[in-house]
Amino acid sequence: MSDLKIEQLAANKSFGGWTKMFSHPSATCGGEMKFSVFLPPQAESGTVPVLYWLSGLTCNHENFITKAGAQQYAAESGILLVVPDTSPRGAGVEGEDEAYDLGTGAGFYLNATTEKWKKHYLMEDYIMRELPVIIRSNFPVQEGRESIFGHSMGGHGALTLALKYPGRFKSVSAFSPICAPSQCPWGEKAFTNYLGENREVWKKHDANELIKSTKLEIPMLIDQGGDDSFLEKELNFEMFRKTCEKQNQALTARLQSGYDHSYYFIASFMENHIQHHAKALFA
Amino acid sequence: MSDLKIEQLAANKSFGGWTKMFSHPSATCGGEMKFSVFLPPQAESGTVPVLYWLSGLTCNHENFITKAGAQQYAAESGILLVVPDTSPRGAGVEGEDEAYDLGTGAGFYLNATTEKWKKHYLMEDYIMRELPVIIRSNFPVQEGRESIFGHSMGGHGALTLALKYPGRFKSVSAFSPICAPSQCPWGEKAFTNYLGENREVWKKHDANELIKSTKLEIPMLIDQGGDDSFLEKELNFEMFRKTCEKQNQALTARLQSGYDHSYYFIASFMENHIQHHAKALFA
Repeated sequence: MSDLKIEQLAANKSFGGWTKMFSHPSATCGGEMKFSVFLPPQAESGTVPVLYWLSGLTCNHENFITKAGAQQYAAESGILLVVPDTSPRGAGVEGEDEAYDLGTGAGFYLNATTEKWKKHYLMEDYIMRELPVIIRSNFPVQEGRESIFGHSMGGHGALTLALKYPGRFKSVSAFSPICAPSQCPWGEKAFTNYLGENREVWKKHDANELIKSTKLEIPMLIDQGGDDSFLEKELNFEMFRKTCEKQNQALTARLQSGYDHSYYFIASFMENHIQHHAKALFA
Repeated sequence: MSDLKIEQLAANKSFGGWTKMFSHPSATCGGEMKFSVFLPPQAESGTVPVLYWLSGLTCNHENFITKAGAQQYAAESGILLVVPDTSPRGAGVEGEDEAYDLGTGAGFYLNATTEKWKKHYLMEDYIMRELPVIIRSNFPVQEGRESIFGHSMGGHGALTLALKYPGRFKSVSAFSPICAPSQCPWGEKAFTNYLGENREVWKKHDANELIKSTKLEIPMLIDQGGDDSFLEKELNFEMFRKTCEKQNQALTARLQSGYDHSYYFIASFMENHIQHHAKALFA
């Protein structure tokens, strides 16, 4: 049983609610983990649904909450936002700080199985099992009303976790997700290190593969910037769109002309995404 | 005549418009200066009014544009945002980097007159004379339709510049401004260094003093966080409110319960402030 105690690091009133940051000892990751939340005004007098945000490479628990402009829409709808970190920090794994796309800041939301990484890099268990228990124990949330979204590596995380845990989320969305990590440099590097050389195993952590055998019964929205410098080499937006089409999988996928991979893009369509989730969470 | 050439450092599509950052050689400050702009979608097919933002201590040209969430409202209204830096950088003045509240990041939007600072720290001339010429030369703006707002030190800047240059701005607003810098530690330190020991001179750069002899004929809005840790010692919100009342000076001053001095506070009331300026700029 993991420790349910959390330590508040910061609290700032925002849009009538509260943006707060916490740290806690994580049994799953074997060290301190940090996360941010936004408590909407509605949480003062009742329970509210939860929307998890998974960030991209190099981010921590702060980027989204300072830059995405999500609080105003979560305040309007009455949704608790939860923003975990992207990896363990200071786990002491050799080389964990050497590259921006592996180790610290690059957990890829999966459970590592290789000898080197499997002791700390268990982000799937952290996000799906440990953190939700902590959230439910410390905040006035409605059990069973949870959704998930994310950006880039976190878009990959949101899509794969929604696919791996049917029934767990009411809706999913992603900004510029890594749709087919088995077939791009970022994913190949991460999966080789965290999961080993067997590419069959990789398919269980790849949205473009998972969607071939899993029907996603919840609303799925993807926004992708048309001028994203990673679009061609890393993201495989069009491949995923076509796979969904072939599988008769419902998907709203939008290529947004002129937008790039940054939080300026994310902020521009944040209202749409929160509305997408609010519709499902309050259905 | 100053050089009107600017170099683009970054461009990100945002809310149908563009967030951009530039650097340029400043004749006034004797070195390179940086600024950010938000070009609303309306600027692609016509001219638009301009709203200047002046940031607080320790900030540069980036904080506001990444954290305040202003672009969406400027995009709706069709207003160009201009966000200058808070001081020269790397001017080589002895001690300029030693404290957060003097020198780099702390120009206080005035023209220094002391021997040590007067060569580079001429932020009033930079904001009021050099930068506007550069903006008008490089962007499709409507001359004569300009407003100004800011935060903390930048709130002081917005109020004092509106008072010193009657007719120049259509509206002014401030978040947690330093209302009476002659009577608080931040202001006393800055004014002693930049202006010397003569406190009579200080009054020309102090909103609470200027308002005693100047009637401000434009709409003025101030929001102040009720739980701002600097409220009592540095900001003198209540003193300024009373001085305005005594002078029969129109002022909308709001103490916002629970909010602090951060960008979370600023973002929470950004829509109100942009609407305040839009009303005046489009009148």
